[in-house]
Amino acid sequence: MIDVELEVLGRARDLAYPETRRAVMTLHDDIRRPTEYHLGWTDVDGTPLGGKGGKGVRTALAIVSAEAAGAPAEVGAPGAVAIELIHNFPLLHDDIIDTDRERRHRPTVWALFGVGSAIIVGDALMALAPQVLLEEVTPERVSATRRLLDATAAMIAGQADDMAFEGADDVSLSACMRMVEGKTGALLAFASSVGAVLAGADIDVVEALESYGRHLGVSFQALDDVLGIWGDPRITGKPVGGDLAQRKKTLPVCAALACERREAAELRALLAGEALDAAAIARASQLVEACGGRAFTEQLAETHLACALDALRSGALDPHAVSELEALARFVTRRDH
Amino acid sequence: MIDVELEVLGRARDLAYPETRRAVMTLHDDIRRPTEYHLGWTDVDGTPLGGKGGKGVRTALAIVSAEAAGAPAEVGAPGAVAIELIHNFPLLHDDIIDTDRERRHRPTVWALFGVGSAIIVGDALMALAPQVLLEEVTPERVSATRRLLDATAAMIAGQADDMAFEGADDVSLSACMRMVEGKTGALLAFASSVGAVLAGADIDVVEALESYGRHLGVSFQALDDVLGIWGDPRITGKPVGGDLAQRKKTLPVCAALACERREAAELRALLAGEALDAAAIARASQLVEACGGRAFTEQLAETHLACALDALRSGALDPHAVSELEALARFVTRRDH
Repeated sequence: MIDVELEVLGRARDLAYPETRRAVMTLHDDIRRPTEYHLGWTDVDGTPLGGKGGKGVRTALAIVSAEAAGAPAEVGAPGAVAIELIHNFPLLHDDIIDTDRERRHRPTVWALFGVGSAIIVGDALMALAPQVLLEEVTPERVSATRRLLDATAAMIAGQADDMAFEGADDVSLSACMRMVEGKTGALLAFASSVGAVLAGADIDVVEALESYGRHLGVSFQALDDVLGIWGDPRITGKPVGGDLAQRKKTLPVCAALACERREAAELRALLAGEALDAAAIARASQLVEACGGRAFTEQLAETHLACALDALRSGALDPHAVSELEALARFVTRRDH
Repeated sequence: MIDVELEVLGRARDLAYPETRRAVMTLHDDIRRPTEYHLGWTDVDGTPLGGKGGKGVRTALAIVSAEAAGAPAEVGAPGAVAIELIHNFPLLHDDIIDTDRERRHRPTVWALFGVGSAIIVGDALMALAPQVLLEEVTPERVSATRRLLDATAAMIAGQADDMAFEGADDVSLSACMRMVEGKTGALLAFASSVGAVLAGADIDVVEALESYGRHLGVSFQALDDVLGIWGDPRITGKPVGGDLAQRKKTLPVCAALACERREAAELRALLAGEALDAAAIARASQLVEACGGRAFTEQLAETHLACALDALRSGALDPHAVSELEALARFVTRRDH
């Protein structure tokens, strides 16, 4: 299984990397350098690291989604570039908003190059993504661009929810789910279908892949939320209970707040209180677990993974691509790597 | 003359405002509210101010550029909405970067709603602008979208130059001109031609209008740079010598640094020095003037205004629209209002 997973990731990266690189090289020097650093291509001083960036799950989804529609992998490449760029711009901006000084065990762009730099680098990547798609004007490229812009808007609305919820005492599970579908689901739905859109696939093929991506996004976010409270900082690269310290209303927290037990009231009061020190954070994570927030969220991740896999049955998709999408879904939702 | 100017501004605003409003209303509540405030539609507490935003020069350029190509004003409306949105996103981000707490005599969005809010509001407006253009898919809409994205990328590169120059001891006039053409020229060239693009006008018409807008942008920026050093804070809403305090390498400064006089060396040393107090800023502005930086920049503004007006002769443009574009150019480059 590992081999299948690595094969598709490596293959997609090899295909998309030169294209992404070509797009990034068109940027202003002072934007390109922080971009190359952020993408993991170079070190702080600009020395090439010899790698091609992160695991490249979104890249692989874009490439395989072209194959799922019966098209050659290359057809998905502009979509792979666009999703890589559009996925990274909010990371640059979020790190400023959350004052996170580290990402993936490295200093964040704002911490290294300054807030101004991180803001305009994010802006530049956001402008570049639709530019890449519209380099050629075909009905398929235009359709992909519209979908990219819609997904971007949905993602930003999800971020707005996320930020608003930090200051809210209570957030319903349905509001939290809406936030997750926007913040994470929209871009994964785009990534998982853009290749098919570029291939001019039938709407039922596109919709099956979108559904797969949206469910996969929710499953991924649910597991990420669990790690945000109970994850090992050495692996996640984030502080213990970091999400709780920021009073984020993640899925486990919203599920816990929705329960009838008296622990939920204690949790609510704790998260609405003044200072959240280490003891308060530890207590809060106990309370979330006692109220079933962890178990609920882990189950939610399972359910949405199953829905994602089910969605692959509903369209007339290429069987080999389906097996790769299945492997990618398991890879994304198994965080021990 | 005043009446002609006001007529076209009011007419364009009346036409574009409902469309801009409709687009803004699609945004998440927590993004829409700061947007309405920033655009001058509402007060801090959300109370409608009854106005339709600023002077609306860019709106008017977009509308009139449709008429210049012989099309009805309405054809330019989606372009007017897009330029209004794309013009405002960097203002939101620049105010954070420059830590400016006031704009047009009102608190800036980051000062009022927080840095995180100002970042994602800017992001949302940047995504919304091409979405509005691509609401309908026609060759004209797609072409306008590509031009919007190209202009946005050029503007961001201009900002990157602007920021880099703050830390540079010396910036050549040609580098400064390139920065101004990107930072201000690109979006005004887009604003001044998008209506014609949407009307499906011939390339010579589009290029004449682009040339007009690019020159107008440089002329405007030159005058803005003069005001940034010698302007009356009660009128500009900016601190005296604010640009010098930030060590911005604006046109007057770069022109002064390029001169052979010994005052240029003193200016260079002053701007590279540690602290820039009020006395140092006053001395720096004297030195810029002594080196001819002010006179050069004022002359540059005149020259580019003349070029802008000349460009209107080169295409087969509607004569009434041309007279309105002439009036708009004079309005934009006469800052005593």
